[in-house]
Amino acid sequence: MPVVVTEIDRVASNVLDAFQAFGVATVHEAQGRKGLLASYMRPIYRPAHIVGSAVTCEVTPGDNRMIHVAVEQCQRGDILVVSPTSPCEDGYFGDLLADSLKSRGVKGLVIEAGVRDVASLTEMKFPVWSKAIFAQGTVKHTLGNINCPLVCAGQLIQPGDLVIADDDGVVVVAREQAPEVLAKSVEREKKEGVVRARLKAGELGLDIYNMRDRLAADGLKYAKRAERE
Amino acid sequence: MPVVVTEIDRVASNVLDAFQAFGVATVHEAQGRKGLLASYMRPIYRPAHIVGSAVTCEVTPGDNRMIHVAVEQCQRGDILVVSPTSPCEDGYFGDLLADSLKSRGVKGLVIEAGVRDVASLTEMKFPVWSKAIFAQGTVKHTLGNINCPLVCAGQLIQPGDLVIADDDGVVVVAREQAPEVLAKSVEREKKEGVVRARLKAGELGLDIYNMRDRLAADGLKYAKRAERE
Amino acid sequence: MPVVVTEIDRVASNVLDAFQAFGVATVHEAQGRKGLLASYMRPIYRPAHIVGSAVTCEVTPGDNRMIHVAVEQCQRGDILVVSPTSPCEDGYFGDLLADSLKSRGVKGLVIEAGVRDVASLTEMKFPVWSKAIFAQGTVKHTLGNINCPLVCAGQLIQPGDLVIADDDGVVVVAREQAPEVLAKSVEREKKEGVVRARLKAGELGLDIYNMRDRLAADGLKYAKRAERE
Amino acid sequence: MPVVVTEIDRVASNVLDAFQAFGVATVHEAQGRKGLLASYMRPIYRPAHIVGSAVTCEVTPGDNRMIHVAVEQCQRGDILVVSPTSPCEDGYFGDLLADSLKSRGVKGLVIEAGVRDVASLTEMKFPVWSKAIFAQGTVKHTLGNINCPLVCAGQLIQPGDLVIADDDGVVVVAREQAPEVLAKSVEREKKEGVVRARLKAGELGLDIYNMRDRLAADGLKYAKRAERE
Amino acid sequence: MPVVVTEIDRVASNVLDAFQAFGVATVHEAQGRKGLLASYMRPIYRPAHIVGSAVTCEVTPGDNRMIHVAVEQCQRGDILVVSPTSPCEDGYFGDLLADSLKSRGVKGLVIEAGVRDVASLTEMKFPVWSKAIFAQGTVKHTLGNINCPLVCAGQLIQPGDLVIADDDGVVVVAREQAPEVLAKSVEREKKEGVVRARLKAGELGLDIYNMRDRLAADGLKYAKRAERE
Amino acid sequence: MPVVVTEIDRVASNVLDAFQAFGVATVHEAQGRKGLLASYMRPIYRPAHIVGSAVTCEVTPGDNRMIHVAVEQCQRGDILVVSPTSPCEDGYFGDLLADSLKSRGVKGLVIEAGVRDVASLTEMKFPVWSKAIFAQGTVKHTLGNINCPLVCAGQLIQPGDLVIADDDGVVVVAREQAPEVLAKSVEREKKEGVVRARLKAGELGLDIYNMRDRLAADGLKYAKRAERE
Repeated sequence: MPVVVTEIDRVASNVLDAFQAFGVATVHEAQGRKGLLASYMRPIYRPAHIVGSAVTCEVTPGDNRMIHVAVEQCQRGDILVVSPTSPCEDGYFGDLLADSLKSRGVKGLVIEAGVRDVASLTEMKFPVWSKAIFAQGTVKHTLGNINCPLVCAGQLIQPGDLVIADDDGVVVVAREQAPEVLAKSVEREKKEGVVRARLKAGELGLDIYNMRDRLAADGLKYAKRAERE
Repeated sequence: MPVVVTEIDRVASNVLDAFQAFGVATVHEAQGRKGLLASYMRPIYRPAHIVGSAVTCEVTPGDNRMIHVAVEQCQRGDILVVSPTSPCEDGYFGDLLADSLKSRGVKGLVIEAGVRDVASLTEMKFPVWSKAIFAQGTVKHTLGNINCPLVCAGQLIQPGDLVIADDDGVVVVAREQAPEVLAKSVEREKKEGVVRARLKAGELGLDIYNMRDRLAADGLKYAKRAERE
Repeated sequence: MPVVVTEIDRVASNVLDAFQAFGVATVHEAQGRKGLLASYMRPIYRPAHIVGSAVTCEVTPGDNRMIHVAVEQCQRGDILVVSPTSPCEDGYFGDLLADSLKSRGVKGLVIEAGVRDVASLTEMKFPVWSKAIFAQGTVKHTLGNINCPLVCAGQLIQPGDLVIADDDGVVVVAREQAPEVLAKSVEREKKEGVVRARLKAGELGLDIYNMRDRLAADGLKYAKRAERE
Repeated sequence: MPVVVTEIDRVASNVLDAFQAFGVATVHEAQGRKGLLASYMRPIYRPAHIVGSAVTCEVTPGDNRMIHVAVEQCQRGDILVVSPTSPCEDGYFGDLLADSLKSRGVKGLVIEAGVRDVASLTEMKFPVWSKAIFAQGTVKHTLGNINCPLVCAGQLIQPGDLVIADDDGVVVVAREQAPEVLAKSVEREKKEGVVRARLKAGELGLDIYNMRDRLAADGLKYAKRAERE
Repeated sequence: MPVVVTEIDRVASNVLDAFQAFGVATVHEAQGRKGLLASYMRPIYRPAHIVGSAVTCEVTPGDNRMIHVAVEQCQRGDILVVSPTSPCEDGYFGDLLADSLKSRGVKGLVIEAGVRDVASLTEMKFPVWSKAIFAQGTVKHTLGNINCPLVCAGQLIQPGDLVIADDDGVVVVAREQAPEVLAKSVEREKKEGVVRARLKAGELGLDIYNMRDRLAADGLKYAKRAERE
Repeated sequence: MPVVVTEIDRVASNVLDAFQAFGVATVHEAQGRKGLLASYMRPIYRPAHIVGSAVTCEVTPGDNRMIHVAVEQCQRGDILVVSPTSPCEDGYFGDLLADSLKSRGVKGLVIEAGVRDVASLTEMKFPVWSKAIFAQGTVKHTLGNINCPLVCAGQLIQPGDLVIADDDGVVVVAREQAPEVLAKSVEREKKEGVVRARLKAGELGLDIYNMRDRLAADGLKYAKRAERE
């Protein structure tokens, strides 16, 4: 039977705050190239960049009943993560639900489905990452689980996991690993800063990363002109 | 044989004007969740919001001859609706045709195909909802019907039907039902205003919509912690 | 074995400059409706409009090693064109590589794959046309050809070919044909200017293009009312 | 409110029988190249070829309640046509429903959604044309219209219309036009027989259809060798 | 760092054997409509029906190195489940790997990517469910995890989980729940047998499932003729 | 202006015959993993396996006029390769054209578009690899090039190139390279025969290919049980 889990462990708010300095690409790299949601998860407006703890919400096709249930489980700093039990692009979410989430301090929505009222959502600055923009209305008949593990856009998301979303997409970090990934993100960004300065100054990645010898060893040839292949 | 119907009944201009206050999602709901074109019909720029009477235009793949014929049938306040006889993403329409339509007072274009010159169209504020942006040129060889019933992006559109398009997509309302749907849209918006105020004040949809009893009756459980499933 | 061709003929810089006046749709038409890359090649921000000589770069799925090699082959006024040996949407390119290309005077990137750091790329005004926006990282293991003929998004691109990209997409012009296509683009734009003025003044394409007789000859009928079909 | 229309006019059974001699491509051509459902409507097994009168059934996403209602409205010689109010690939239909339809003499199913139990359906020779094969179960909560006009896979289908489905896909013929389209199909098939004999004997379409003069007039050139383009 | 887990708990062989009597649709329903992989996972030949314990294998795009590692971890009665870290349709698997798996008694392959040599695989009766058929070769450079939890085609799969695949697609059952789901499958099949007999005899689902009263209560109307809507 | 090239160099017939022993995957590997058409090019029936010299035919969307022109250029042992100037799934080709090609000894058709009459084509054993099966008819208005270089499904094909198509898809080999690729295919198949025997006997690829040391060097770990990640 469907269940609503009411107490979940969240990422510490100081960790959330610290992650706000890092984008999806950086965090994805820092945690070993995992946790990235599918590329069809796109922001409804740009730029947008949020960090929060996941409240997970399972819905059925064309039925947004459980989103109303999920709202009550959301706290300040959370991100609501919604996924249907089978693919659906209906407009599960619009500006009324956004008003409700916003009044609770929720950062934004990640939904593997459709969203509507995007002009209003843009105006009120409530960011959403979705699979589609579609006005199609939904019913309120079927139950689903809240705050249970969920696969959303190809990634397993546990309630309370760290979610980061920006113009590049959405990445999830396991809650327990958040501090470690934060440290690695800081480190990565620092290293990138050094590389960035050298690249801007005209140095080549080939030299900065010492790629030339290995390329030659692997057999890469340089030729002035292409021979007739 | 293909035919151009030259006299069609349109939605009264005061009704058109009144609909300008309502978005696609509202009207779609107000008329009983029907009439929505497929989610791949997207505006070439945002925000955009138009209301008009449909002039329908059937084209063949890669052939925009009939759009030139359709222009003459368009009047102030119309929206040109174009659909190919089989799927095609070619760029049937560009800024020259937009100049022509604009000089006639046409509100915009809805086309289940491709459009080009989108930088110019954006600059001149001629809104288009299309399936693709694609510069591919078309020929002018084949005939089609103008102002005959047309299926566009999954919806039947009769000439003269009311078309509303905004950032959420496109919806069609049968011409005869437009006044009734207008009344329902007014009513819906009014109700939503009341709900919106309560949601912004922090009340929950669960309470506003009285959802709790039925959820319990249907078997939804609340648990502090997830059991090992 | 993979090869890097180091000397390629480019389009003359005055020709490049002259093409900056023309968009993708115009050039595509002027050269006889060919050379257009697939419609899924979209700019990461709009408006954007670049003209340059192609440096071609072949990569393997999930592996951006050769992009680093390609950077060294790029000169002021070039456009880097990247295509994978099989379909892949990974984020081969981000703001560090953009810093590097920008320091060399490269105009932009055309990649039949994914790109990341799009917020930074937008801010720094480095335009990219890609198949996807995706933060997914890549490895650096496999070799590929640089400045060899490449099929990118359905079009054959030779190193040194002229590439034009704008909000409508991307078109390639064979290097040797660039001057001739330029002349035809100038001519086309001129003609369009005349037509545009007449259309804005309310004349119909039907009359400007003398379409009425042929439409009648082909059997197009006009009727006041639709008969029961 | 949703309605079930219980009395519809059907195609005469002798007309249905006569159409069994003709495939989808022939009928589509005979009626002027219209009425073809989208190419994603594929048979679950091949070969298969059915002809019948449409009983139309509207469903909501993930909800097959109305199919049970529709079964009762089906008679010997009918084809059940099902379309969801928004895109859904769930498995609305399986072998139990097929047993039920078969016991009533129904010819087969056309569904713009998913189907399951395809191994059983293949074994029992109940043909289905669907958008997907997917085992995903559905609920039974929502109402829809039966025997009302329906857009299915891009075509308007009226209850009682003639539906033909074979390995090429599905075509619909308006009920009133069925006799006329039948006559044209007979005629077309006869002509094709003559052409077929000549083609098999080695004559060229270029000659049979007298295409050479027009090709030359339009400017087609023949050259022994390709010039450097 | 990537890891190969060498000891996993599997489903008991008598349970596997017992599941062979049930198809994907039945098991999916019996366990509460969950566990179904995406509809694009299709068998390379039909009919096919296998049941086994999952050995999970993570690969990177265009790189099948870890499949060779995974083979060693496979035992009689297993099903190899492969998923790439980002979407890829390359041909990771062909008849040589099938020979190897077959010699170890492996039942088949489930891969969210491409497969090749399908003519041979069909002839040798080694069943595969894949996202694509594609001959594209892969490299052997990158590491991944074996027998760790994996998201494949939208479902979380733990090593040792029960996998069932047939003409309808693929479903996963958590190892611990396999006996319970088996019992429910038996029960469901039994009930379906009774219903099937009644349906074949011409009874209606409307009566068997007692749907009429609720339909009326929900407002469904029956009308002889459609009114002008 | 469009041109028909009437004299092209073809692959020697003994080379064609020799290639008949090799499938698409083998040849693709033997020539260095290139030349593979996109995975959406699928045979209309299986098994099928043909080898021939390419006659290339460019068509416009929804217009099959040039296929009739191309037929005359086809000889015994050829494969007709057709590609539209922009994406189109219309049914450009049916059984009449197949009768015509068959009478000339043509091996089959490769078309990046739709095909129809697939039941007849299957019965008469005329193999086709296409992007879609679709009955949609086409017109005969527009010119295109015959026997000029063509990009089809992502690969450049020169007239006279070797084309191989089987259940895995389609691969093209440059005409001049055909003998060399043949030799490499023979060699590859021989090596595979040895490996195959060892794999069937239960040896592991890990050992046959000596993969273990490098895996360890790259850091792959083996563990009896998964640690809590």
